[in-house]
Amino acid sequence: MRNKKISNAAVGRIVLYYRTLKTLEQSGEKIISSGKLSKLLEFTPEQIRQDLSYFGQFGVKGVGYDVENLRRSLENILGLKYSWNLAIVGVGNLGRAIANYKAFPGMGFFVNALFDVSKDLIGKKINGVKIYDSENLGSVAKRKFIDIGVITVPEDQAQKVVNVLVDVGVKGIWNFASTKIFVPPEVSIVNEDLAVGPTALSYNLSKK
Amino acid sequence: MRNKKISNAAVGRIVLYYRTLKTLEQSGEKIISSGKLSKLLEFTPEQIRQDLSYFGQFGVKGVGYDVENLRRSLENILGLKYSWNLAIVGVGNLGRAIANYKAFPGMGFFVNALFDVSKDLIGKKINGVKIYDSENLGSVAKRKFIDIGVITVPEDQAQKVVNVLVDVGVKGIWNFASTKIFVPPEVSIVNEDLAVGPTALSYNLSKK
Repeated sequence: MRNKKISNAAVGRIVLYYRTLKTLEQSGEKIISSGKLSKLLEFTPEQIRQDLSYFGQFGVKGVGYDVENLRRSLENILGLKYSWNLAIVGVGNLGRAIANYKAFPGMGFFVNALFDVSKDLIGKKINGVKIYDSENLGSVAKRKFIDIGVITVPEDQAQKVVNVLVDVGVKGIWNFASTKIFVPPEVSIVNEDLAVGPTALSYNLSKK
Repeated sequence: MRNKKISNAAVGRIVLYYRTLKTLEQSGEKIISSGKLSKLLEFTPEQIRQDLSYFGQFGVKGVGYDVENLRRSLENILGLKYSWNLAIVGVGNLGRAIANYKAFPGMGFFVNALFDVSKDLIGKKINGVKIYDSENLGSVAKRKFIDIGVITVPEDQAQKVVNVLVDVGVKGIWNFASTKIFVPPEVSIVNEDLAVGPTALSYNLSKK
């Protein structure tokens, strides 16, 4: 397995490959052809081959992929054997929804700190996790060994918050603010865009 | 322009192409080569060509794409010239976050009704939109000409709610419940998976 740097988009695709393989494995499939995988995943076989080729040779020509082996390899590649500490900055509706997301602990994602500016919220807990004053973001994030900062503050606060997290060594940013965020090259960022889902529906409905 | 049925994954990619072209256009770019577009979008040139080829011939060999023309074409293709009525079923944190999402009206997405089972919520308003009793989901959705149902109820309620919406003619489902939802072929569904973002970060961080 090589450790090449690949794009966020490619990692996003590998996450989808991983989840599909897990479902296949649970339903008892042993081998899957690249053609069938392509159909299930809705990417071209070339795209899938190119993405997987970053990590080595998985498929056997004319046979396909061993479902369990490939699932295991992708799990390792994705770092899902580790656990990660998350801090959510901005305890609005979206921040709360993420703090309450049940599937995260089982995948190794642990929300360890919440931050907000509101005096009414500071000191309270959500799902057993304390809400800290955003004033102390840097020092608390450092003390709690935060790996990933979840940005659910208003747009005009997002870059400021990210800068504080990056300064204390946070290496992953999951950004929900719809604004362009700048991070140094050693920091990874994933930008969420709530508009993609309904736009895909808009496409499908306008064809009816 | 042909009206072929394409996959949700392909539509998702076209939404990304559209948003990137819009940014390019706003920054004054007139023409973009397929190589540069591929690099920006993080998909192979083959994948982009294949996706766009569903709708006709856009690029000029050896020159590239006309940014404004392609953006306009994709806007039409995606149905963004229409407006769509959304109903959010389940007024928890995620439902509230979506009800308050500021970018939607500008894209033609209008939240016209909210639904919940909680007696404390029914009759109240969020962002000027009334919360109705989920008991009346079918009749209110019909009366309000709902196009897209946003599913933010607990997992075990999701299929039941979708069935009611489908029965009164709702043609689009935006599902946030982490469970497999079945819809008839004439209904489009987009499933959101909150775990993709942090898993992409897990990948990047485990390589550091």
